[in-house]
Amino acid sequence: MATQLDTDYFQKDKVLKTVGTRPIKADGVDKVTGRARFGADIHLPSMLHGMFKRSPHPHARILSIDTSAAEALAGVKAVVTSADFPDMKPGTPYDDQTRNMMARGKVFYDGHAVAAVAATSATIARKAVKLIEVEYEVLPHVMDIMEAMKPDAPLLRDDIFTKGVDPKPDKPSNVTERVEYAMGDVEKGFKEADVIVEHHFKTKAMHQGYIEPQACVASYTEDGQAEVWCTTQGHFRFRQVCANLLAMDVSKICVTQSEMGGGFGGKNYSYIEPVAIALSRKSSRPVKLVLSRNEVLRATGPVSGTATWFKMGCTKDGKITAAEADLIYETGPFAGSMFANAAMAGFTRYDLENVKSVGHEVVTNRPKVAAFRAPCVPPTVFGIEQIVDEMARKIGMDPIEFRLKNAAEEGYTTVYGQTFGPIGFTTVLKTAKEHPHYTAPLGANQGRGIATGFWFNRGGPSSATININEDGTATLITGNPDVGGSRVSLAMMAAEELGIDVDKVRPSIADTNALGYNHVTAGSRVTFSSGKALIDATRKAIKVACERAAEIWDVPADGVVYEDGFCRPSSSNVGDFDPLPLAEIAKRSIALGGTIAGHAEIVATGAGPGFGIHIVDVEVDKETGRTDIKRYTVIQDAGKAIHPSQVEGQFQGGAVQGNGWALNEEYIYGEDGRLQNPGFLDYRVPVASDVPMIDTVIVEVPNPDAPFGLRGVGEVPLIPTMAAIANAIRDAIGVRMYELPMSPPKVLKAIEEAEKT
Amino acid sequence: MATQLDTDYFQKDKVLKTVGTRPIKADGVDKVTGRARFGADIHLPSMLHGMFKRSPHPHARILSIDTSAAEALAGVKAVVTSADFPDMKPGTPYDDQTRNMMARGKVFYDGHAVAAVAATSATIARKAVKLIEVEYEVLPHVMDIMEAMKPDAPLLRDDIFTKGVDPKPDKPSNVTERVEYAMGDVEKGFKEADVIVEHHFKTKAMHQGYIEPQACVASYTEDGQAEVWCTTQGHFRFRQVCANLLAMDVSKICVTQSEMGGGFGGKNYSYIEPVAIALSRKSSRPVKLVLSRNEVLRATGPVSGTATWFKMGCTKDGKITAAEADLIYETGPFAGSMFANAAMAGFTRYDLENVKSVGHEVVTNRPKVAAFRAPCVPPTVFGIEQIVDEMARKIGMDPIEFRLKNAAEEGYTTVYGQTFGPIGFTTVLKTAKEHPHYTAPLGANQGRGIATGFWFNRGGPSSATININEDGTATLITGNPDVGGSRVSLAMMAAEELGIDVDKVRPSIADTNALGYNHVTAGSRVTFSSGKALIDATRKAIKVACERAAEIWDVPADGVVYEDGFCRPSSSNVGDFDPLPLAEIAKRSIALGGTIAGHAEIVATGAGPGFGIHIVDVEVDKETGRTDIKRYTVIQDAGKAIHPSQVEGQFQGGAVQGNGWALNEEYIYGEDGRLQNPGFLDYRVPVASDVPMIDTVIVEVPNPDAPFGLRGVGEVPLIPTMAAIANAIRDAIGVRMYELPMSPPKVLKAIEEAEKT
Repeated sequence: MATQLDTDYFQKDKVLKTVGTRPIKADGVDKVTGRARFGADIHLPSMLHGMFKRSPHPHARILSIDTSAAEALAGVKAVVTSADFPDMKPGTPYDDQTRNMMARGKVFYDGHAVAAVAATSATIARKAVKLIEVEYEVLPHVMDIMEAMKPDAPLLRDDIFTKGVDPKPDKPSNVTERVEYAMGDVEKGFKEADVIVEHHFKTKAMHQGYIEPQACVASYTEDGQAEVWCTTQGHFRFRQVCANLLAMDVSKICVTQSEMGGGFGGKNYSYIEPVAIALSRKSSRPVKLVLSRNEVLRATGPVSGTATWFKMGCTKDGKITAAEADLIYETGPFAGSMFANAAMAGFTRYDLENVKSVGHEVVTNRPKVAAFRAPCVPPTVFGIEQIVDEMARKIGMDPIEFRLKNAAEEGYTTVYGQTFGPIGFTTVLKTAKEHPHYTAPLGANQGRGIATGFWFNRGGPSSATININEDGTATLITGNPDVGGSRVSLAMMAAEELGIDVDKVRPSIADTNALGYNHVTAGSRVTFSSGKALIDATRKAIKVACERAAEIWDVPADGVVYEDGFCRPSSSNVGDFDPLPLAEIAKRSIALGGTIAGHAEIVATGAGPGFGIHIVDVEVDKETGRTDIKRYTVIQDAGKAIHPSQVEGQFQGGAVQGNGWALNEEYIYGEDGRLQNPGFLDYRVPVASDVPMIDTVIVEVPNPDAPFGLRGVGEVPLIPTMAAIANAIRDAIGVRMYELPMSPPKVLKAIEEAEKT
Repeated sequence: MATQLDTDYFQKDKVLKTVGTRPIKADGVDKVTGRARFGADIHLPSMLHGMFKRSPHPHARILSIDTSAAEALAGVKAVVTSADFPDMKPGTPYDDQTRNMMARGKVFYDGHAVAAVAATSATIARKAVKLIEVEYEVLPHVMDIMEAMKPDAPLLRDDIFTKGVDPKPDKPSNVTERVEYAMGDVEKGFKEADVIVEHHFKTKAMHQGYIEPQACVASYTEDGQAEVWCTTQGHFRFRQVCANLLAMDVSKICVTQSEMGGGFGGKNYSYIEPVAIALSRKSSRPVKLVLSRNEVLRATGPVSGTATWFKMGCTKDGKITAAEADLIYETGPFAGSMFANAAMAGFTRYDLENVKSVGHEVVTNRPKVAAFRAPCVPPTVFGIEQIVDEMARKIGMDPIEFRLKNAAEEGYTTVYGQTFGPIGFTTVLKTAKEHPHYTAPLGANQGRGIATGFWFNRGGPSSATININEDGTATLITGNPDVGGSRVSLAMMAAEELGIDVDKVRPSIADTNALGYNHVTAGSRVTFSSGKALIDATRKAIKVACERAAEIWDVPADGVVYEDGFCRPSSSNVGDFDPLPLAEIAKRSIALGGTIAGHAEIVATGAGPGFGIHIVDVEVDKETGRTDIKRYTVIQDAGKAIHPSQVEGQFQGGAVQGNGWALNEEYIYGEDGRLQNPGFLDYRVPVASDVPMIDTVIVEVPNPDAPFGLRGVGEVPLIPTMAAIANAIRDAIGVRMYELPMSPPKVLKAIEEAEKT
């Protein structure tokens, strides 16, 4: 038995028994029966109801906050304001975070929290919130990024000096940062082009639209410890945020994640948990905070609105010679939109020699933006994939053929410096070209569009423990909230390694006490990173099992090998022993050295990038401007689909959310800077009747650095959707849409304008 | 850096900074404020109330159970009987367990469960229980062990054939087993004796008297998994019991332990959890079961009543020449009283050449007995230490001097085959002799008694994980419910190893998903076994920290040593580096290979035995027979007191419980075999006014195989109490008590009888 663990995660030639099958996921049953506990489903004895007081102004100085009347109301047990949280170091992300969580000195957007109360009932809490008197000096506000960039725009903050420009500016502005990703010589490239297409695009702020609002219960004890239950994509990050914003030891906080009713990037951020702890500390009672939909839309992170410009050139035989982008991204009042992703990933998937992307991030009087599947990439791809479509049209080339001609392959080095290993873009494109959908006939007012997408896929810190129980079943704990079936996928990988039935492996998500740090569930990192951690852990457990078998047989440890759930002598020289099943070794292990277990704390690297293509048919009603999705196919490289149904679910979910973003979803602010549609009646997410069955095709081009060759699949399915639909609209009615959402009034207006010319 | 971990747990020469101090224990605050969650404090949405139907007969055949009327009652969601649990293999402990949990065919004692219901309210559940019709054929019952051993006694079971006798009996009986522990030649020993003392003794069944009744909530989900929250001394064992009694995979059950309102051995056994799971499975709702005090006393394990006989001889200069015991122990209807402990430990602490102990275990129509601090040993020591006292009186020797003359020392091999390492009996005795209490003056009707005790102390399977958080604080998880301050003691040991403040180490108890198997919290095994596991885990974490420091400094791993919370170069040859604090390495570790963590799953061996002596002054009211405890001192070897206050708490708690057992506590059954005092009004546990402040002296004779030299301290403080009080009564009034409890009527009767003669 080698001391070093096997690091072949891919296991190219292994005959797989569990990976690639479709077992029922255990948590699915609980969700269907209503048994699953979501963020708001935790109750503690003597628990109080918390509620926020929020700003009605998009921009104002707080002159005073009088909480005395609220505090005097019977049943009110605590009121907190920013004064209850320690100062953070200026200019740090934690400073931004505490100011966003609870306004300090200034409010920056409609709905910005200024205080919170905890009371014995929600009714009393609501009354108390009304009794808090806040005196404001209202300031001029700016809602639009283009307006905000003007020299005479209202300045949100005097501490923002644009980063990434040389020389360093000496005056504050609303532009937080400039990034540039470039290689080759775009001027030269454009000179070589036969055809050049360029255009401006705009997209609006929209929301991830998770069904479950933020919710938590916190209980701070008199000896300075806190327990938190919450809906989150990263309870270890939330613990870190709570510890920092409250100046507590990390060890004194335990966070347990609930089932999550959607997150999509929006639940990477803690908005309410430190407030709940502060209220609990002040009241000596557990405190529950649950946001309303109004609060979710007004004060949790939407997606950046954007203003973009793209210019691309190609030869008449379809080779792209140059690509240029100018990207302006909203971030709300604080930096951290991840806008650089757009500059890095926008053109990535094409084999470009000459490329330049410049990005700017701009503060406005809107809520701080948050991540959403492939943060910041989709609005840029919305423009680029339309430009590509237009180029193909201009030279009369099939749009998939055009992309195949320019597709990046293994060995390509991207604008941000990554050299691709084996990737599946070409395979995905070829699969699409041969898919029946691509050549199916279309009806009147119908059109077909395609668009493609790329996402990095992430790795990072993950931890895992596997305990082999006394009956040979396994208990697996990992530390990432499950947003897309990761529990069953991880259990399947453990079962595959152990050579036992997946039903015998119980996966569960550990609280923050039980495991080492786990980065957030985001960027499609979990199945990859926690997968690597659990394989390490499982192989360590197998090593222990072999040592125990060696003890039982009284042979050297290297005389035992593990295969398909059994320890066997490694050769006939070792002796004539019947194979020992894991269950038998486990049963004897309680007395023989302790539980067979394996543990791993790792930082996973080597995630393989993902590529996909969407084919969509639309029908546009020229009378109303309404676009109907008639048929939709998602084709994407999953490397290896661990649980194909979960992969298909990701493909379908991304496409559905993209449908909403494409056709309807947007934040509508009034002149007064107040959100006019903070509810699901006026902010329209797609419902079942809005979308057809989304067909899916899983392509498998393995990533040799990943468990079983897998690739993350969560982001790519959203990226091309809006562009594919725009291309289909163009195909259907000859009109190209340059703005999101492509809602009926806008499409109608575009039709009318096109008819004018 | 050596690959092998240091296995010096004792660390004889280490200057201790934390171990031996008295930090506030974190869980103490929660208990004082009422925040701690005990077994009954868990609430789940739509939870049902469970309740048992119990037998009114001590012995009866169940002819039929009609649950139809109960099932038809509105609000009743499930009724279960033994038919809802699978058959266990006859003759196995699980067969006994399922039959004790829910009667199968026969009821064996007043209060034996025959069915259980789950309903939407406790009121409905109570009504439903009344509606269950059970038809019984009442059988003759036997309550007394001496009666039960008679050939014509009612036979409880036809499957008991006395074990341990040769030839194997061909007829069933009420005697489950005979054990014999002997060495030397007692006949020869008695011939060498100048003085021989012998007598019969009796003790009554009594109860551990934990304040918190058994309570649990179980939730069985439609996909076959179960979560259980309960008050327990061993949630891993409870998981195992539930899995076996319900034929479920161990991995499909997760048990979380609550804070415990006392256990003392009684919560080693699962009475209600499998029933709650079965009710939840049948009702598709979470189910809470909470026993009443009546149920606790009638149907959870009391302590064995006993009938014993001892004979000891000594020379006139005080050397014991022979010792013999005959021990008869009640076990209720099923074997498993641990009566062999009495035969093994009874005389152990004296350096005896000729010794013989024979024990018998007998079934009666009483609830199945359960463990209580040093299971089965105290009733035997009640007799032996009186015999020893009487021998010392007869030869006119000081009783401590007498014991010093016969005290076992390092190297002594016991009747059960253990050869003692360094032990503290002699030191304890000498400390007692010099204690001011021993020579303080006594008043009228007052007397002083001493008695001594020995307990093996246990090891066994334990697991531990320590995670070093990103701010350098540590999170420690272990798997044993905390009955006597083990959380703070374990945190102190981790802090000592890490060289950080104990306030920076958060100890918590993992649920059964998060760790490998942990044996029950019993036998004083936790601080020792989990202590060894956590030291292993902590040393593994320190090894990782050193590897990370080596990476940061770019030096070989063996170039780094860890001291007092810092990584330092192991010599000046390594390079000139400032010591790196653990917090700094931890902060960088999330990116640098993952969380610094350590894990251990072990079977701990080498626990050192514990010895103690009690000195007690009593005053006996000759008019009423009432005995008052005037002064009490416990002197015991703790090896090394990790947290002296917790050790003192164990000393005091044991003595208080012994006071109750000595003077008042007993089960009183009527002729009808029904318990007449199933409540704390009639079953009288000691209250604050019954006992004086118990003084304590901690002796420290280290066990070199244990962390910091510690020894378990939970059992010994109970063992000598009853004998010490009896010896004090003898000293006060010249009358010796041969039966427990020494309640006023019995003392009065003894006085009267003595006056007659």
